Amino acid sequence: MTKLHQISATRAARMIASGELSSEALVRSCLERIAAREPVVKAWAHFDADSALAAARACDAAKPKGPLHGVPVAVKDVIDTCDMPTRMGSPIYEDHRPATDAACVAILRAAGAVILGKTVTAEFAGIAPGATTNPHDPARTPGGSSSGSAAAVADFMAPLALGTQTGGSVIRPASFCGVVGFKPSFGLVSRVGVKFCAESLDTIGVIARSVADARLTWRALVGLPHSLAPDLRDPPRFALVKTHHWPKASADSVAAVENAIARMQARGAVFDEIVAPPEFSELSRARTVINDYERARALAWEKSEHPAKISAAMTRVIDNGWSISFEAYLQAQRTAEHWRAWLDIHAQGYDALIGAAVNGEAPPGLTTTGDTSFQEIWTVLHVPTITLPLSLGASGMPLGVQLIGKRFHDERLLAVASWVMRDEPAASRQ
Amino acid sequence: MTKLHQISATRAARMIASGELSSEALVRSCLERIAAREPVVKAWAHFDADSALAAARACDAAKPKGPLHGVPVAVKDVIDTCDMPTRMGSPIYEDHRPATDAACVAILRAAGAVILGKTVTAEFAGIAPGATTNPHDPARTPGGSSSGSAAAVADFMAPLALGTQTGGSVIRPASFCGVVGFKPSFGLVSRVGVKFCAESLDTIGVIARSVADARLTWRALVGLPHSLAPDLRDPPRFALVKTHHWPKASADSVAAVENAIARMQARGAVFDEIVAPPEFSELSRARTVINDYERARALAWEKSEHPAKISAAMTRVIDNGWSISFEAYLQAQRTAEHWRAWLDIHAQGYDALIGAAVNGEAPPGLTTTGDTSFQEIWTVLHVPTITLPLSLGASGMPLGVQLIGKRFHDERLLAVASWVMRDEPAASRQ
Repeated sequence: MTKLHQISATRAARMIASGELSSEALVRSCLERIAAREPVVKAWAHFDADSALAAARACDAAKPKGPLHGVPVAVKDVIDTCDMPTRMGSPIYEDHRPATDAACVAILRAAGAVILGKTVTAEFAGIAPGATTNPHDPARTPGGSSSGSAAAVADFMAPLALGTQTGGSVIRPASFCGVVGFKPSFGLVSRVGVKFCAESLDTIGVIARSVADARLTWRALVGLPHSLAPDLRDPPRFALVKTHHWPKASADSVAAVENAIARMQARGAVFDEIVAPPEFSELSRARTVINDYERARALAWEKSEHPAKISAAMTRVIDNGWSISFEAYLQAQRTAEHWRAWLDIHAQGYDALIGAAVNGEAPPGLTTTGDTSFQEIWTVLHVPTITLPLSLGASGMPLGVQLIGKRFHDERLLAVASWVMRDEPAASRQ
Repeated sequence: MTKLHQISATRAARMIASGELSSEALVRSCLERIAAREPVVKAWAHFDADSALAAARACDAAKPKGPLHGVPVAVKDVIDTCDMPTRMGSPIYEDHRPATDAACVAILRAAGAVILGKTVTAEFAGIAPGATTNPHDPARTPGGSSSGSAAAVADFMAPLALGTQTGGSVIRPASFCGVVGFKPSFGLVSRVGVKFCAESLDTIGVIARSVADARLTWRALVGLPHSLAPDLRDPPRFALVKTHHWPKASADSVAAVENAIARMQARGAVFDEIVAPPEFSELSRARTVINDYERARALAWEKSEHPAKISAAMTRVIDNGWSISFEAYLQAQRTAEHWRAWLDIHAQGYDALIGAAVNGEAPPGLTTTGDTSFQEIWTVLHVPTITLPLSLGASGMPLGVQLIGKRFHDERLLAVASWVMRDEPAASRQ
């Protein structure tokens, strides 16, 4: 029998709306799962069972507020919450309690969501990991920086989570943990109340166990009415996109993409191939320049007041950021704009692009969160991307396949992802 | 004899660096000016004379930290300060004390600046004014939303101030108060720790009494080395730009632009004219859509938790924002991008565009902060603009003339502005 903490957000919302299920029962089931698994998974930076249950009971006593009424959501700990600490993975913020909710949290609460707690993030959503382990193998990284969000959803502790992506911080952990990760187009989800890492890259994303659940959350975030995903009239038209990173993809990551393509071709989807020109590789360097330059400024106060409480890895990023000239930064921004325009042209005529989500399975060890190459180029290009848990790697760990949409065509990308998953068997180990 | 509070930031910095002047003496002079004039001007949301003097003495006791060592700066009260309240012109934040400095404040402190206090802002940098009056006529608005920053600098209470612009909130108050207002290209000054109004428009700007002082502050903010502004090799090439708003400019505002042009032509500058096509006017509507849509989300928590503490004017903006469809918002963003590309093409070959900064003198009364038309189009186009106090209106109030640069060509715009002001008599009443 399916346990309550295993049901989808979409189903839970429907059952709560119809009176078949109480938010309290659902939250209690999630809390039981957390109690059982948290000692191994370590997904949470903060949760308080009593407060979560009180919020659930308040939902049960109130008139339905919106499409997420009574549904628990986990929130990455770089996103402000007025009733919980926001520690950002940094000892500098050990005692930090924001005065307000971030806009995305306020919007989800207005849609009825129960904020279940705060999930572990790498320090300032960067590269110095927290304690979270991969639910499929505690000796492996869950990815990062939205480590706790991906692990909590993958491990059935919460049906939904918010993450943020500046490099690959939504797509990579979702891939490594075998769940759906959706990073919308840059700029579409308000970042008010979210700690900036690199202002022209940071994007709030959604982690869920199905495309329908990710879409439900996305639509609540941007204020689109909740509805069933429209069916595509025809099978989608894709382009497999091969960048300078493609040779770095492991054999199983390549196989994940090729097998997914073969299955979709059998269902009528059409595939072309786009090979990025060699100069496309300058985009990776431009992203590093933009990231480091902006991060140095974003952490100006922390570096000035609490330098000893910043990790060595982040200190290197900050120091590099201050060493980048203003002119080099402008040039990196121009490079990014050049390739955004290139992609606008080359993505014309396709419903989505397809590529590897990650270079391979979650690597063993908890000291790094993995390679960002396959995610970060799409972040800097500001386009929406989604990873789908379509495969398993050589060690049996989950492997995502990434679909990339055109900027502002987020709804179309979700419709394509929904089509892709419609006939897929559950590929993850869960 | 020039009083200390009247000297420029550039001169003060040089005198402090050479030991001719102490920061304490300079700050004390500013505090005396504030004590004398604040009852009428009402520029300050917060200042604490003892803390300001302590910071100045600390500078005097320390080794020089940077180009602003010992120079007092006023900070608009939507920008976080770890040692002063940040009230945002809203009773919701009456008791709010941020945990950290905004990045721009931390960067200025690292450059040696003394944060003198927080200046009055319209509610959430919007349209509901604070109590500040125009230093040239207390019965008139100083403009907004950076009301206190412009008034404090114009009234010699501080040599420099930070403001923010989402519509016209730096350029308009600077024009109305007869000082220099500089709004950089979108995205170049880190907004970490600044309350967002409309995320894709908000830009931190500088208010000063000279181009050299604005440039000194700008360079400190972006980390460019302090140096003298380069002389232009040749007189600049301008285009007078006439948009759909041009017919709304008052006779004295038109005369301000035309007289400035005549004087510059006499000095060898070359002028063309660009007349924006009729469809350019859709940019104004697009800006309103973007502004209201994003503001509604930026204030999601405040509207949910403290609706009665939000002004009627802001409540209308928020309600309008929630009534705008996601598709209409995307369309407005596409419109903005279309005209950015248009401007890129049409501004080619010019060192700067020139136009009115405001539709006329600061209007009588303190219930509005004036018309945003002449500023907001450049904000949504993401280009740098500067207003120069080149004229007086029919009532003897200051009138600015606006120079508009190409995006990312902020340094070039400042060099042109410096050329323009080189041979200008002091046009403001001060």
